[in-house]
Amino acid sequence: MQTKSPVIIDLKFDQEKVAAALKGAFPGREVINLSHPASRNRDLSGIDYAVVWRPGADLFSRAGDLKVVFSGGAGVDHVVTLPGLPDVPLVRFVDAMLTTRMSEWVIMQCLLHLRQHQAYEAQRQKRVWRELVQPGASEITVGIMGFGVLGQDAAAKLKALGFNVIGWSKSGRKVEGFETHDEKGLGTFLGRTDFLVGLLPLTPDTRGIYNTGLFTRLSRKGPFGAPVFINGGRGGSQVAADIVASINDGTLHGASLDVFEQEPLPLESPFWSMDRVFITPHVAAASDVGALFRHVGRQIDRLESGKPLEHIVDRGAGY
Amino acid sequence: MQTKSPVIIDLKFDQEKVAAALKGAFPGREVINLSHPASRNRDLSGIDYAVVWRPGADLFSRAGDLKVVFSGGAGVDHVVTLPGLPDVPLVRFVDAMLTTRMSEWVIMQCLLHLRQHQAYEAQRQKRVWRELVQPGASEITVGIMGFGVLGQDAAAKLKALGFNVIGWSKSGRKVEGFETHDEKGLGTFLGRTDFLVGLLPLTPDTRGIYNTGLFTRLSRKGPFGAPVFINGGRGGSQVAADIVASINDGTLHGASLDVFEQEPLPLESPFWSMDRVFITPHVAAASDVGALFRHVGRQIDRLESGKPLEHIVDRGAGY
Repeated sequence: MQTKSPVIIDLKFDQEKVAAALKGAFPGREVINLSHPASRNRDLSGIDYAVVWRPGADLFSRAGDLKVVFSGGAGVDHVVTLPGLPDVPLVRFVDAMLTTRMSEWVIMQCLLHLRQHQAYEAQRQKRVWRELVQPGASEITVGIMGFGVLGQDAAAKLKALGFNVIGWSKSGRKVEGFETHDEKGLGTFLGRTDFLVGLLPLTPDTRGIYNTGLFTRLSRKGPFGAPVFINGGRGGSQVAADIVASINDGTLHGASLDVFEQEPLPLESPFWSMDRVFITPHVAAASDVGALFRHVGRQIDRLESGKPLEHIVDRGAGY
Repeated sequence: MQTKSPVIIDLKFDQEKVAAALKGAFPGREVINLSHPASRNRDLSGIDYAVVWRPGADLFSRAGDLKVVFSGGAGVDHVVTLPGLPDVPLVRFVDAMLTTRMSEWVIMQCLLHLRQHQAYEAQRQKRVWRELVQPGASEITVGIMGFGVLGQDAAAKLKALGFNVIGWSKSGRKVEGFETHDEKGLGTFLGRTDFLVGLLPLTPDTRGIYNTGLFTRLSRKGPFGAPVFINGGRGGSQVAADIVASINDGTLHGASLDVFEQEPLPLESPFWSMDRVFITPHVAAASDVGALFRHVGRQIDRLESGKPLEHIVDRGAGY
């Protein structure tokens, strides 16, 4: 009887949460958690699987026989560029809960701007009871850049709430019920967008894409007179200095950022205290580590029962 | 060529908002805003239209040739009783937006509590980058008291976002796709409810219904360990002192209030500065003055192109 291959866990996450999630995970299979000092000198040869997020520099040389690498996150930009990454299938983390959580965050941010939450909070500080001009969702067009699983889920929910929603993806992916644009249609897409929601993966094409040049092409015809930028995707896609300048000079009416070029956000960042900006510490779609291990377990079961792996990353495209 | 009749505006609303909404409204037509001192001695004879809310006592004697009077509010009880109201069509303000706006507010409040917005804002004040334990919408049951047009619209949208939703109305109104309860089922309904959303009309039965006795019957099994109370209905249905005490002793985890027993909220109210409480100045479903002017414009266009006016008040019935 063949023994099941162990699973290597090398996740630079909160170790308490990882340990809790590992209880009962991968039944019948040894789990080698590299965060444990006891695993430091463990022989990793002959092992098929590794689940990684910011793994140790020597992982791939120590574990020379991996058959599959599982990314610990939905975004794989940190993984595809790892030195020594073997030429085996790289599987992304796909989780229904992650999609739902991202949509919660996106919708809350759209509503915070629409309903002028910060202005009402400022009035509250001064004990001022006053109604502000309040446009409805139907007066806002939300343009979503990145119209894959996350973008489409957010789109459907925003639409149910009464927002107008349009989508953009490099390929111009067609989605029933939505006006979508491709690379060539970017100008048209931006010109119609009052609230820009960024859900793009980070690739060489999207690095720094959210910059002043792009912000100036957004609609200024919306009820707030200037657009809002909401980024739940990747910090590397945005140019922080451009966002700050655009908020300050009125190119942008406001922003919501869950991701940053440098995380944790440096203490000296102006975002900590800027008006008309909401920030969250990369928690928009934080998914539970338990769900990650269930996903990895399902994929290993598929492979070992002769079915193809799902959610394999296209390394050429970078996502 | 005939000149289009001017429109008289006599609205005791926030004048900044009226002025903002009037920009671009009624194209090709003179607008006489009686809140402007310059209009004080303006001759109003020969003018066809007036849009009114608590108009000046002399309006109808000065404007003796009105052909239509437009109410500035959805309710017309303040208008039908006006002394000197001419015997011409009186048109109410009908606005589908009002339902949509209430759902926007309800959903934003549910998300603010779910996603611990206030806790993240407090961390931001201290420049702390830290993920909090974050339950998902699917771990929360929202119980809506008042399951009519507003309640059902909010319910459908909350459900789309992943919340569990149950409804309560005095009659136990059945609604496809939702578990609903009636008067006798109140205990069961409350015992399952993590976030209580109040959308009840104010009647002798509902006055003071949201009190400590009711709050203690809500579920404490939800992920926050105590329930949240969200009132978008009527201030008279809640007992402010009970909400304050319930927040302070942990009976309630948090609250969102758009309505109050006394409005504007008195300066000495603790709600202005309480943690875990969001307040807004009775604006959850306020319909926007811009929508009013668009509605009036559409009705004038209908009339002038030979079509019948819509939404004419039955003065005998009083609505």
